[in-house]
Amino acid sequence: MFQLVLLSQKQQVDVANLSLNAELMGLPKEIPIQVEQTCLVGGKQAGSRVIRLTVGDTVVRVVPTRGMAILEATRHGVRFGWDSPVKEVVHPSFINQEASGGLGWLDGFNEMLVRCGYQWAGHPGQDGDEFLTLHGRIQNTPADEVVLEVEQVPPYRVTLRGRVDEKRFKFTNFELHTELSLTPDQAYLDVKDRLVNKGSYPREYQAIYHNNFAQPILEKGARLHVPVAELSPFNDYAANGLKDWSEMPAPTTDFDEMVFNIRPLSDSDGLSYALMQNAQANQGIEVCYSTDTLPLLTVWKNTDSLEQGYVVGIEPGTSFAYNRAYQRPLGLVPTIEAGESKQFVVRFGLFTSEKEVTESRLRIEQLQAQTSPQVLSKPVVVLD
Amino acid sequence: MFQLVLLSQKQQVDVANLSLNAELMGLPKEIPIQVEQTCLVGGKQAGSRVIRLTVGDTVVRVVPTRGMAILEATRHGVRFGWDSPVKEVVHPSFINQEASGGLGWLDGFNEMLVRCGYQWAGHPGQDGDEFLTLHGRIQNTPADEVVLEVEQVPPYRVTLRGRVDEKRFKFTNFELHTELSLTPDQAYLDVKDRLVNKGSYPREYQAIYHNNFAQPILEKGARLHVPVAELSPFNDYAANGLKDWSEMPAPTTDFDEMVFNIRPLSDSDGLSYALMQNAQANQGIEVCYSTDTLPLLTVWKNTDSLEQGYVVGIEPGTSFAYNRAYQRPLGLVPTIEAGESKQFVVRFGLFTSEKEVTESRLRIEQLQAQTSPQVLSKPVVVLD
Amino acid sequence: MFQLVLLSQKQQVDVANLSLNAELMGLPKEIPIQVEQTCLVGGKQAGSRVIRLTVGDTVVRVVPTRGMAILEATRHGVRFGWDSPVKEVVHPSFINQEASGGLGWLDGFNEMLVRCGYQWAGHPGQDGDEFLTLHGRIQNTPADEVVLEVEQVPPYRVTLRGRVDEKRFKFTNFELHTELSLTPDQAYLDVKDRLVNKGSYPREYQAIYHNNFAQPILEKGARLHVPVAELSPFNDYAANGLKDWSEMPAPTTDFDEMVFNIRPLSDSDGLSYALMQNAQANQGIEVCYSTDTLPLLTVWKNTDSLEQGYVVGIEPGTSFAYNRAYQRPLGLVPTIEAGESKQFVVRFGLFTSEKEVTESRLRIEQLQAQTSPQVLSKPVVVLD
Repeated sequence: MFQLVLLSQKQQVDVANLSLNAELMGLPKEIPIQVEQTCLVGGKQAGSRVIRLTVGDTVVRVVPTRGMAILEATRHGVRFGWDSPVKEVVHPSFINQEASGGLGWLDGFNEMLVRCGYQWAGHPGQDGDEFLTLHGRIQNTPADEVVLEVEQVPPYRVTLRGRVDEKRFKFTNFELHTELSLTPDQAYLDVKDRLVNKGSYPREYQAIYHNNFAQPILEKGARLHVPVAELSPFNDYAANGLKDWSEMPAPTTDFDEMVFNIRPLSDSDGLSYALMQNAQANQGIEVCYSTDTLPLLTVWKNTDSLEQGYVVGIEPGTSFAYNRAYQRPLGLVPTIEAGESKQFVVRFGLFTSEKEVTESRLRIEQLQAQTSPQVLSKPVVVLD
Repeated sequence: MFQLVLLSQKQQVDVANLSLNAELMGLPKEIPIQVEQTCLVGGKQAGSRVIRLTVGDTVVRVVPTRGMAILEATRHGVRFGWDSPVKEVVHPSFINQEASGGLGWLDGFNEMLVRCGYQWAGHPGQDGDEFLTLHGRIQNTPADEVVLEVEQVPPYRVTLRGRVDEKRFKFTNFELHTELSLTPDQAYLDVKDRLVNKGSYPREYQAIYHNNFAQPILEKGARLHVPVAELSPFNDYAANGLKDWSEMPAPTTDFDEMVFNIRPLSDSDGLSYALMQNAQANQGIEVCYSTDTLPLLTVWKNTDSLEQGYVVGIEPGTSFAYNRAYQRPLGLVPTIEAGESKQFVVRFGLFTSEKEVTESRLRIEQLQAQTSPQVLSKPVVVLD
Repeated sequence: MFQLVLLSQKQQVDVANLSLNAELMGLPKEIPIQVEQTCLVGGKQAGSRVIRLTVGDTVVRVVPTRGMAILEATRHGVRFGWDSPVKEVVHPSFINQEASGGLGWLDGFNEMLVRCGYQWAGHPGQDGDEFLTLHGRIQNTPADEVVLEVEQVPPYRVTLRGRVDEKRFKFTNFELHTELSLTPDQAYLDVKDRLVNKGSYPREYQAIYHNNFAQPILEKGARLHVPVAELSPFNDYAANGLKDWSEMPAPTTDFDEMVFNIRPLSDSDGLSYALMQNAQANQGIEVCYSTDTLPLLTVWKNTDSLEQGYVVGIEPGTSFAYNRAYQRPLGLVPTIEAGESKQFVVRFGLFTSEKEVTESRLRIEQLQAQTSPQVLSKPVVVLD
């Protein structure tokens, strides 16, 4: 196993700019694995880092300074991610989440995988005595430790581990251990996160894996496939879109966003799947997740204009995207005990062939086969 | 043309500390042009950059990390700028604009040219659902791209271009292209900014060029010359100062500030002028601006003690300095269409001779010649 | 005198990583003095600096980037400080004090000496028109200037000076000059701070020296010795703890915190003392302070679990820990005149022998000898 500490508070290690090929990692030189880290410059990128993993035909860009976010992935040249109006990889020191009524998080929002949590996720607003900013703090927290591991024998799995602290004296003592891995011969990108409550008291927590995808997968005629137990609109506007919620339009000025709340069906392993395929059904993104800790799915259909950010979110979570205050009565604000760990598993299928897409679609259809989706015409939450 | 990229997100260029003389820029070595960039250290300066342009007898210091602000200029040893109690060139990562009811902007306020805008400018406070912090966000946004251009033939114009992004997903997609230029043989410092709405929807915007000047120009007996169509006091306190609004006192403890709102007259080119001359009328600062996009002028008479910041602001704008909520009913909150650009032109005359000052004064008097200024005794806005 | 500028805005000096032994400082090489500065990396430490002074048997770690805080001291291997759940030396650019109703300060709270002030200290909340965040801004302000001085003759005093600005145009123009010193042969760590109001107007100010200690001094059976004129509970919860306020329990889940307000007795030099000794009375921390400027003492008994931060604060101040709004009517919000300086003297006795502890205890008992402590059963402030 090749192991390299890229960043460590404990060891006071910070490798900064880095470029490693297979040989430098002790692999046979023909193994298509490369690792680069770049320190970004200019504007609100100053201080940001990007780690680029090339593993077989897949390239993944990870942002350790933004909570180990995945900026984007490409496989066989197909890009998985989206084009936010925010072009910079914004360093957290420039983010003020309290800005504009708790919306400052939006100043840096542009990644494929954005973690929302873990003290809270969801929309900003008052929850009792506490004002919650949009989607929690983890995404604007730089990683403390980043470690690269590369297997030197087949399947040559490349793993990038990170640790991100979410701590406030008296309030929160969470540690997040992230793990991202992939192999040269597979279409899958595996994310396994472990949240630990290091404090002495149980705490509420929430997590939403805000995974965002746009062209080329998203286009007019693209479709979502989700095994649905229950589907409901997030709000009245989304209620108007129930009839074709899974069909994707072209970029549409004034569409803004429709959000759909889903209680998904899962298989005997506790896994559920969501697939977005392009119009030709020969490219697709599959989001697979373990429903024991991520029992819900939010579909964020933000098929606005290209300039505004044409994008669909496929977002497994502990919770929907409402402010926490609305979700507690629904039983959607779980608790993590003192010393307890919670594991979140999300696997991305980066599909670039009709075969891969079809297999995924069939898997989902099979899950749906025995159950009719229940569709609620009204939101489960009445917003003020 | 000598061209050098000092900072670029796209090219991942950051030249950091830099010192260039005429020869290094391919100019005849006797041409008095020098360029330096310094990375500042210590306190809240950490991360700040200052670019020092020496062009003939003029020295200009520009702060790319604060939205391409002009810290100060000197010509023939006469300083144009002011002495804020804030001595540091504060890096935006230390600014929290939401602090103390939206006044955090004041923690870094010390430049000669401070841009206010562009989503909003003016005083903090609630505007409908939105809480606006003092004078908008652009000044606390570091530039993404900085490019130096120096002509290698007369008049050897030196141009410093910058790009500053003001973006928030769903809300704002503004890009600001700044241009500052000067030549060795002229008394003028030219600023040409272009604001572009890269989004798909029209947006409100505001701009105030908060230009601030103090000693040696500002002193007891210094005078302002402004071609006035309409003059009104900002508030009741300023109403008491209408009679001698254009005459400058010595530093005056407990003066605090009086603000005057002006609708200026402009010439056939759409330009208006404001001149502050010293008591002897042999030094002065002229602010010339295009009234198509900057139709208003705020005069900020902050002739408080030296320690508090003895300073006068000569501030062309789309708007006055009220909170946006007060200006919308007055028609002072313009809109920029999707894809549209707005250009803002401000030219500073750095006058160090009686001749220059007199010519400027005569130009202004001529503009005023055919029109009597209308003076309103009450503010146009009733503040709560 | 060996003198070295470690950081200076004026001189543009920033020595960054540094390691000096006695010889390099021009001392006889057997003199046990060493100085190191480390630039920290990773997470929210990025940009932080720690200066490590080894002076005889004492090691002190100072954080210039957090207002010259003392992270911890050790003497003869005994640690003076505490274990906050916050492990990082958080750089101020990651702190948003306005977060969560003004509690963002807690995101970086982990030092032995934390300065609270100087515009305000105490609990967050509204004070008239102003919203005050927890404990003021100074702790999250990086030093502008840091100078090391080492005497080259006995007693080889090592002094670390810092300057920290607390400035906001129109509001505040404070400069803090900190001085920390110690000698190889003494058990004392001396802090002398000077606050200067550089503005033209008198200003309210507050200061609390939030000194925090835990194991090994703090343990079941540890005791506080304080010469008390008046003792009162901070709130109703603390009223329940009056009977054994000075006796320390083992880490206690659900203890949370009890806070006690003390008006201390002082000696003829205007000094007062507080001693926390361990159960065996052979280790202790003495906090000595000048009561002319720091007339009050807050005891913060936070004997919660180890994971939550088992710690006791011994906090001399101008004020108690209530929000400023509550203290003004009590006369506990002093004023600093224009141009005036206030000096704050705090001396830490780092005791590692029974003899030192006993002498300190006797000194305090002698101060108490002629006066019976007045114990108020109710808080002096009725909280909303």
